[in-house]
Amino acid sequence: MVKNKDDIPSVDDFDRVIHEPARLLIMTYLSLVDTADFVFLTRETQLTRGNLSSHLRTLENAGYIAVEKEFIDRKPRTLLKITQKGRQALSKYRKDIEQIIDNIPE
Amino acid sequence: MVKNKDDIPSVDDFDRVIHEPARLLIMTYLSLVDTADFVFLTRETQLTRGNLSSHLRTLENAGYIAVEKEFIDRKPRTLLKITQKGRQALSKYRKDIEQIIDNIPE
Repeated sequence: MVKNKDDIPSVDDFDRVIHEPARLLIMTYLSLVDTADFVFLTRETQLTRGNLSSHLRTLENAGYIAVEKEFIDRKPRTLLKITQKGRQALSKYRKDIEQIIDNIPE
Repeated sequence: MVKNKDDIPSVDDFDRVIHEPARLLIMTYLSLVDTADFVFLTRETQLTRGNLSSHLRTLENAGYIAVEKEFIDRKPRTLLKITQKGRQALSKYRKDIEQIIDNIPE
């Protein structure tokens, strides 16, 4: 019934850590830069600091991002970086979701 | 930072009725057929009957699918059909998600 039915991932294959919209957005941003600053990410994602922190913790616990603290002019700064594992998971997620949405008529 | 940053939907724009993986799968199947039988959908999605029923109710409440009951040889049969509203919502969802994932490096 579906064009490539056998290729369609089952519901359980989905990486729900990444699938959550805020986390998908964060991971996509991080896949495009070397490191991103916490404050910068709040602006880009338009999430509250609390909300962003919570999603970053989920991503860190999954091993998808690394969090570094540094001091610049004695001010603390939080830097986020996608890990190799995160990059692979994001790439797999892209393939999985494309295998579904490519079936949707335009 | 992101290729088409201004085109990237915000987290709140996401249609979470469709974004849930099981419902995305159901909607994708229904977008490809005239009508689908409940039993057939359980097989295709590999969801339990209870789980499938619950997702179908959510989709029906959103006006995205229509549920019809009919009798064949005196046996009841439940037929599911995507609505015009559902088709539009699915098509918008596809565009929204593509605007994000198209930024992800392969």
